[in-house]
Amino acid sequence: MKTLRDIGEDALIARLLGKIPASDLRVGPGDDCAVVDDGRGPLRLLKTDAIVEGVHFLREAAPAKVGWKAVARVISDFAAMGGRPRHLLVTVALPADLEIRWAEGLYRGIGRCLEAWGGQLAGGETTAVPEGGPVMVSVAGEGVVDRRHCVGRRGGKPGDVLAVTGALGGSMRGRHLSFEPRLAEGERLARGGARAMMDLSDGLAKDLPRLAKACGCGFEVAREAIPRSRGVTIEAAISDGEDYELLAAVEPRKWDRLVLDWPPELAPLQAIGRLVESGGTLAGGWEHFTS
Amino acid sequence: MKTLRDIGEDALIARLLGKIPASDLRVGPGDDCAVVDDGRGPLRLLKTDAIVEGVHFLREAAPAKVGWKAVARVISDFAAMGGRPRHLLVTVALPADLEIRWAEGLYRGIGRCLEAWGGQLAGGETTAVPEGGPVMVSVAGEGVVDRRHCVGRRGGKPGDVLAVTGALGGSMRGRHLSFEPRLAEGERLARGGARAMMDLSDGLAKDLPRLAKACGCGFEVAREAIPRSRGVTIEAAISDGEDYELLAAVEPRKWDRLVLDWPPELAPLQAIGRLVESGGTLAGGWEHFTS
Repeated sequence: MKTLRDIGEDALIARLLGKIPASDLRVGPGDDCAVVDDGRGPLRLLKTDAIVEGVHFLREAAPAKVGWKAVARVISDFAAMGGRPRHLLVTVALPADLEIRWAEGLYRGIGRCLEAWGGQLAGGETTAVPEGGPVMVSVAGEGVVDRRHCVGRRGGKPGDVLAVTGALGGSMRGRHLSFEPRLAEGERLARGGARAMMDLSDGLAKDLPRLAKACGCGFEVAREAIPRSRGVTIEAAISDGEDYELLAAVEPRKWDRLVLDWPPELAPLQAIGRLVESGGTLAGGWEHFTS
Repeated sequence: MKTLRDIGEDALIARLLGKIPASDLRVGPGDDCAVVDDGRGPLRLLKTDAIVEGVHFLREAAPAKVGWKAVARVISDFAAMGGRPRHLLVTVALPADLEIRWAEGLYRGIGRCLEAWGGQLAGGETTAVPEGGPVMVSVAGEGVVDRRHCVGRRGGKPGDVLAVTGALGGSMRGRHLSFEPRLAEGERLARGGARAMMDLSDGLAKDLPRLAKACGCGFEVAREAIPRSRGVTIEAAISDGEDYELLAAVEPRKWDRLVLDWPPELAPLQAIGRLVESGGTLAGGWEHFTS
């Protein structure tokens, strides 16, 4: 009998989406966010994401950091479209034997993250899981983005400069629980020439091919140009995952101006390669279901 | 050490919401849906909800029914405001040892429910849970409602007629996996005089006091008037939970017209009592965390 482990995440999602009727959204399932066009005003972004104990965090983690991470991941997806958060919905599934203090810490972290990045809690749901089951936090939200500067995954063209914010790798030493979504960086990129963008959650080795494929392109990467966290090998920087940095494909004639004007208070922007007609591999990356 | 079991769901939610900054939504956390007012056009409804294996369904259940239920619960919340679904986001957490066929059935049910009730899939997320962990489906969504006919939980007044749709009790024999959200009924109630409304998920005994409290009222109920599913005692009809029928408080001078004009193809509408100044108890109801 075939199980999920046998096919892996991307194949699973492709297979499952076939079970659901198509929609008339401007951007539907498969991008960082869905995009709703109400015909006027800013575009609205819709996104849902979940973290699960034993997969994305351990019970020993500080609960406030777990709450922060759950919200920050969704805000990172808004950043990856050039947008910002507006209303968030938080569903928390908790085993009945969980300490109240842990649950309170979790909500404190959720609140802190909303406050720090400008989202509003619009609603929530608390449900039980069977005793011994994992804590799970599912966050859904609505963001907004200027309709002239909404960047999906598909717009990149051969020749575009591939760039990443910040430094990659080593996130599991702690940063995966306390990262800062790249909101200002995403907006700057969207206004400064990014034609395709995503946030790096499964590692560059897995996410870059996704971006290139969505653009109908291949890619070339100068591995030694990849910005690394302190004490991290190139291999780890490519493969570790949970960086929540932005990966963008920038129109070549806009690249110089973007770099010259890049505010020093933002996370640094680093070119790592470019989109090409076809080809490109990068070994590594994180796979949810296969072992 | 205090655990969630010691305090119960309502107290937990009240305690946890204190950890999160307040918002400027027209209706925020605590109602069936949050309500966003963009200043013009219909109001937007935001809602999230989750179902968990071992709590809301068993692995032996038909997966298509589980998918149906996950979506139908959120649509039922839109119905409870007088609204209808627009865009939905579905997060599915699956153990790696799950059969692909089960996951496919789940998505088929999600798709069927969206198709049947007019919602669009705007996005989704698939994540792993540790082996042996529960399947969990979290659905978030956006609905719309006419701004003149949006019904929350708080508007009921002493003297209002309390009414329910359909029949209560016995849902665990199967209906909890295949119920039909009361969209047409909710819209009819909202346009026909309902001043407060909610859907019944935890049983009348638990949900009616919530509605009355939100209205600052008490309640009186004629227990024998409560419409029961076939073969169900009054006790079970009051306590079973998972009915997903609507409970409404209707302005008294509009009640007769509402009943006279009630279309026969809708689920029947039955008066069961009224809101009063104060007081009222109804034993029973479902509590998620206490045992």
